[in-house]
Amino acid sequence: MTKLFLGIDLGGTAVKLAIVDEKGRMLEQNSFPNTCPSNPDKIVKEIINNFHKMKNIKKISGTGVGVAGDIDQLKGVVRFSPNLGWKNLDLKRLLKVHLPAPIVVDNDANAAAWGAYWLETEGKIKNFVCVTLGTGIGGGLIIDGKLYRGTTGSAGEIGHMPFEPFGLKCKCGNFGCIERYLGANYLSMQAKETVERCGSKIILKLTNNNLDRITPRILAEAANLGDKLSNNIWRQAGERLGIVLAGVVNLLNPEMIVLAGGVSLAGNLLLKPIKETIKKRAFNTSAKACRIVTSKYNQNLGVVGAALLSK
Amino acid sequence: MTKLFLGIDLGGTAVKLAIVDEKGRMLEQNSFPNTCPSNPDKIVKEIINNFHKMKNIKKISGTGVGVAGDIDQLKGVVRFSPNLGWKNLDLKRLLKVHLPAPIVVDNDANAAAWGAYWLETEGKIKNFVCVTLGTGIGGGLIIDGKLYRGTTGSAGEIGHMPFEPFGLKCKCGNFGCIERYLGANYLSMQAKETVERCGSKIILKLTNNNLDRITPRILAEAANLGDKLSNNIWRQAGERLGIVLAGVVNLLNPEMIVLAGGVSLAGNLLLKPIKETIKKRAFNTSAKACRIVTSKYNQNLGVVGAALLSK
Repeated sequence: MTKLFLGIDLGGTAVKLAIVDEKGRMLEQNSFPNTCPSNPDKIVKEIINNFHKMKNIKKISGTGVGVAGDIDQLKGVVRFSPNLGWKNLDLKRLLKVHLPAPIVVDNDANAAAWGAYWLETEGKIKNFVCVTLGTGIGGGLIIDGKLYRGTTGSAGEIGHMPFEPFGLKCKCGNFGCIERYLGANYLSMQAKETVERCGSKIILKLTNNNLDRITPRILAEAANLGDKLSNNIWRQAGERLGIVLAGVVNLLNPEMIVLAGGVSLAGNLLLKPIKETIKKRAFNTSAKACRIVTSKYNQNLGVVGAALLSK
Repeated sequence: MTKLFLGIDLGGTAVKLAIVDEKGRMLEQNSFPNTCPSNPDKIVKEIINNFHKMKNIKKISGTGVGVAGDIDQLKGVVRFSPNLGWKNLDLKRLLKVHLPAPIVVDNDANAAAWGAYWLETEGKIKNFVCVTLGTGIGGGLIIDGKLYRGTTGSAGEIGHMPFEPFGLKCKCGNFGCIERYLGANYLSMQAKETVERCGSKIILKLTNNNLDRITPRILAEAANLGDKLSNNIWRQAGERLGIVLAGVVNLLNPEMIVLAGGVSLAGNLLLKPIKETIKKRAFNTSAKACRIVTSKYNQNLGVVGAALLSK
């Protein structure tokens, strides 16, 4: 009999649940808005309610939870989650009386990386990097077929690798982190400023003349409609991320880099300059060995990966 | 009975041999100048001659060789070594009839990292980064207690991670690699230009008024004698490397970073600004978890590590 696993993607705006099989195929799912992130007891109650609405709950052999923040995976404790406002919360303890054991709590980017690894490669390659491009930029590393967590479970913070040594101040305290340039809001801000300076009929039309409405999705739409300014912004964004990833390729010599998250939906607008930059900048042998793709499974990586972490 | 291993550090200017025990303790060693790097048959002959001068050769259970360049470890082939002028040389085949099996050929920075890992930690920690600061900047990663080689054996190229995205052109073809700022010759060149511009009595004295004689060793001596200019150059160098290493700390969350190689002999002049920069720039949890030291075993890391690779 195939084993089933429960995955929970616990985000600041929504909580997703899914039951998946050993290969990450989703059997059922549901979700609810996280209306009160600061009240973990209430969220746990809603998780359990939603879990009990599912059909396959008797066959489940483990539960995995992905949470944005600094997680102690060994203890199942959320050390700090700025998004949720949690500090030293023993999430595993709150969940374990109600949900199928074993319970694994991990960083949401690690969960997404693990999901991407299984969904994109079926676990067939050894060294794999996942970059999640959303409001923030996260990352996860699979080394030798295993999720690599580092010494304190904090590994994979690709978004906080330096792009410019003395560049823009990042909210992590550092300067010039790549997240400060390619995080969704920063990218939108850059686009807004550029349109204000240089003009773009297409973007003005797509936003109904309200440039505060620019999002990476609109920026991609404009680029695909032939808007030069938007195309240039994507080209520059890809080159910037490509420079950082060329360093990652030289350091880790991975077999595959998967880009996931909302900003990655720009597809080739972002992927092409990334590939060109890595080809130009990284060592030949390493660049050739590394396939770079955008994920086909964007929506579900986090919740599927969380489930598979409890395998 | 303790097992013994033969290590060979095959460099562009000298070749070192050593016999070490399982813990990396050196029982005997010898070396010869590499007068003719372009003639591998001649070098192999000299290696064998030198090997036969050693006392413990009957007890050896493996041979490891470290070579500067791009190595296919599975086949024991030197894909490309710019220093030695070798291309697709089957070094393992040349050695295997003459030296104790198994024979392992690896990159010299990987060998040094493996040596540093055993000599500095006795294999007691899991995640470890070694940075070799010499003419070039190399690196090696130990992940989960094993040497991490990546998909094509090319991992660990910390010297070619970006410091400045559009900075000085590196000989690898990329721009702004940290090696282009901290490689021994570049550091000397920077010191020379700065002294020409700003003057330094101490450096002029130490070099007998010939600024072409500046080396990192002299630059460290001058700084230790109180020369402000030299101190500033070390501070800047440490800050630059610290910025790149803060990114490595955020990505890999290692337990220890060891700095080795000639330039690391500057000790605290380099180490202090590196530590300060990492503390300021990397994530708190990761920065706290990571000890950063200069190696106590500089001279022997390559040859000891090479030997231990055949364990």
